[in-house]
Amino acid sequence: MEALDRFEHLFTRRARTLMPPLYGPMPGGDLISFTYGFADPHLFPGEALLAAAAAAMAEHIDSTLNYGPTAPELRAQVAARLQARGIAAEEANVLITYGSSQALGLLPQVFVEPGDLVLIEGPTFLGAVRFFADAGAQLITIPVDAEGLDVDALEEQLRSLARRNLRAKFLYCIPTFQNPTGVTLSLERRHRLVALAAEYGLPVIDDDAYGELRFVGAPLPPLAALDQQGWVISLGTFSKILAPGLRLGWVYARPELIQRLEMLKIEGSSGPFLTRTVAHYSRDGRLDTHIVALRQRYHQKCDLMLEAIAQHFPTDVRVRRPEGGFFVWCDLPAGVSATALLERATQQGVIYLPGTRCFANGQGDNAIRLAFSYLPDSLIRDGIARLGRSFAF
Amino acid sequence: MEALDRFEHLFTRRARTLMPPLYGPMPGGDLISFTYGFADPHLFPGEALLAAAAAAMAEHIDSTLNYGPTAPELRAQVAARLQARGIAAEEANVLITYGSSQALGLLPQVFVEPGDLVLIEGPTFLGAVRFFADAGAQLITIPVDAEGLDVDALEEQLRSLARRNLRAKFLYCIPTFQNPTGVTLSLERRHRLVALAAEYGLPVIDDDAYGELRFVGAPLPPLAALDQQGWVISLGTFSKILAPGLRLGWVYARPELIQRLEMLKIEGSSGPFLTRTVAHYSRDGRLDTHIVALRQRYHQKCDLMLEAIAQHFPTDVRVRRPEGGFFVWCDLPAGVSATALLERATQQGVIYLPGTRCFANGQGDNAIRLAFSYLPDSLIRDGIARLGRSFAF
Repeated sequence: MEALDRFEHLFTRRARTLMPPLYGPMPGGDLISFTYGFADPHLFPGEALLAAAAAAMAEHIDSTLNYGPTAPELRAQVAARLQARGIAAEEANVLITYGSSQALGLLPQVFVEPGDLVLIEGPTFLGAVRFFADAGAQLITIPVDAEGLDVDALEEQLRSLARRNLRAKFLYCIPTFQNPTGVTLSLERRHRLVALAAEYGLPVIDDDAYGELRFVGAPLPPLAALDQQGWVISLGTFSKILAPGLRLGWVYARPELIQRLEMLKIEGSSGPFLTRTVAHYSRDGRLDTHIVALRQRYHQKCDLMLEAIAQHFPTDVRVRRPEGGFFVWCDLPAGVSATALLERATQQGVIYLPGTRCFANGQGDNAIRLAFSYLPDSLIRDGIARLGRSFAF
Repeated sequence: MEALDRFEHLFTRRARTLMPPLYGPMPGGDLISFTYGFADPHLFPGEALLAAAAAAMAEHIDSTLNYGPTAPELRAQVAARLQARGIAAEEANVLITYGSSQALGLLPQVFVEPGDLVLIEGPTFLGAVRFFADAGAQLITIPVDAEGLDVDALEEQLRSLARRNLRAKFLYCIPTFQNPTGVTLSLERRHRLVALAAEYGLPVIDDDAYGELRFVGAPLPPLAALDQQGWVISLGTFSKILAPGLRLGWVYARPELIQRLEMLKIEGSSGPFLTRTVAHYSRDGRLDTHIVALRQRYHQKCDLMLEAIAQHFPTDVRVRRPEGGFFVWCDLPAGVSATALLERATQQGVIYLPGTRCFANGQGDNAIRLAFSYLPDSLIRDGIARLGRSFAF
């Protein structure tokens, strides 16, 4: 015991105050879980990924399995994908990361000293916010409505901060098929957000995990495509369009920020094996073809969930129909608590993410998030029926 | 320009003072390079790794390619490998990392505040020391001789620090087939080192990258096998025994340190795909069989280099014959500068690591490190002959 105390006595202040991650239960078991945005395992191109790994080795086993940098081809491919969406991306604007999570962990190391202000959406993806809080950020929540982030409220907040000579380190937002609400920031608000970023000197982190998974309607320009001054930092991931288990994502930003992130990225590269495999997989438009198939299938599953909800939920549950992504967000009838409902739902054998777990400020007990991405059709139907029954108590 | 200044103005102190990594040239081109300890690409079990990836997918594609933890099987396998070497390792003592580099980046986050004291060997692996320096550590160099770390000098240093009420945060050392000298810490010194660690409350990071690559002689117990109090932190890597391009390594330590490292490990897991693939590969003793083959081949290459050195180098170059690992260390004749020799060697078409790049305190210009691991036999012979000619000026 004494030796143990002597050991921990050597820890840094940060290491002593770390909090364990908020892992929830993985899918499986007897419960039907709408909680997490896992990918549909039936859509993983396993054979093609194996063939790509084999091709990468056959092409050059040394640069695939020895020490080496992130595959330059993958960086170039990501830059080309961003260009195709209207972003003036060069390779110097792109860093390959271990999923978006690594980018979300590195960005506060560049921007956040304890006490610094960070703006977030309410509701939002708390898995990201956790990294900012761990770095000591003070969080300010800006509301989200049916058109996405409330830019009027944002402007008011920025003006109020400026009056007090305060400046936020960045805004973290999910403009397209937002997690958790599924709403998409309107074109007009996109223009206003980018103008506010330039006016107030506000870096904007656009977590664009779902942007390529649009079911209906025409794509809106990403924030980075509207930004002439480099205030937008855009995060992407192969988790939603290929396979989360690979742990590969990317950051788009000004080169001087990319360089800083690269220096902070502890292990140097994302590994020749993984990055060359995905680069080989993505050649010749194969990834694009795959994404078309993903869109169709996730669209079906979304529609299926919405139909089941229409059939089984009370009519005063307000459901937002998303144009893409993995989630349906439901506002519960007045007086129904998402937390209390979860207890009854669990008894019925179904679980979801209560809205309280999407707000950093204690709100959200009147809403729930349902992921339609992971489960097969039959369990989506069954789970929604069970959830419908939980309302009837 | 103004906008750019406004952007960088938001950076943290740490982000502003980061230094770019010390990447050297990758192998290839016209120069014969003995500089880096790359693995021999002819020894990569490419087909078997592909088969393992296919088997992992066939067994369960969802837990291979979806979100999920580091494969528990791999953690258990690493614990079993450590147990086989006399270390009382449980799964709670093991964290899988992105190569040793990630562990080396995370450890100072747990231990080092700016100004803290860290003990290192001289010479040592500066790629590791860089992480400690980046965290603000003040480095104290302890010499290495033919029996490894000079534990008398260590004890003197610890006593001197204690007299001034100072305590180092840890000692970083490479007791087995040391990088760069190839020397192995004697059994007697191992016992003394572990006793000093307990007496002075000194965490000891044993970077055991090469420990399983012994060519001759009987293995010595790893430091962690002699340690009854949990002061030893042991780092291992699949880079030397399987393939560096996978980026997989591990940390063995007390559970309370493993938990802290896991919380700091930004991306949460090392990826189900990679870790399940390597776990499948390593089943049924296949990794052990592979390591036997590696030992034989690297032993041959080491002998080949030593024979060529005996043939081509001046007789007053003092060469240390390593019992394992990737490197031969040569003390140059009096008056010969490793840096000056490198210029002539480069003209002859061969390069190496000058000893100055293995010391944090400016020493080392009288020695060179030669890696025999990467090059084919013919280039080892040719390169040593060229290097021999560079002495003759």
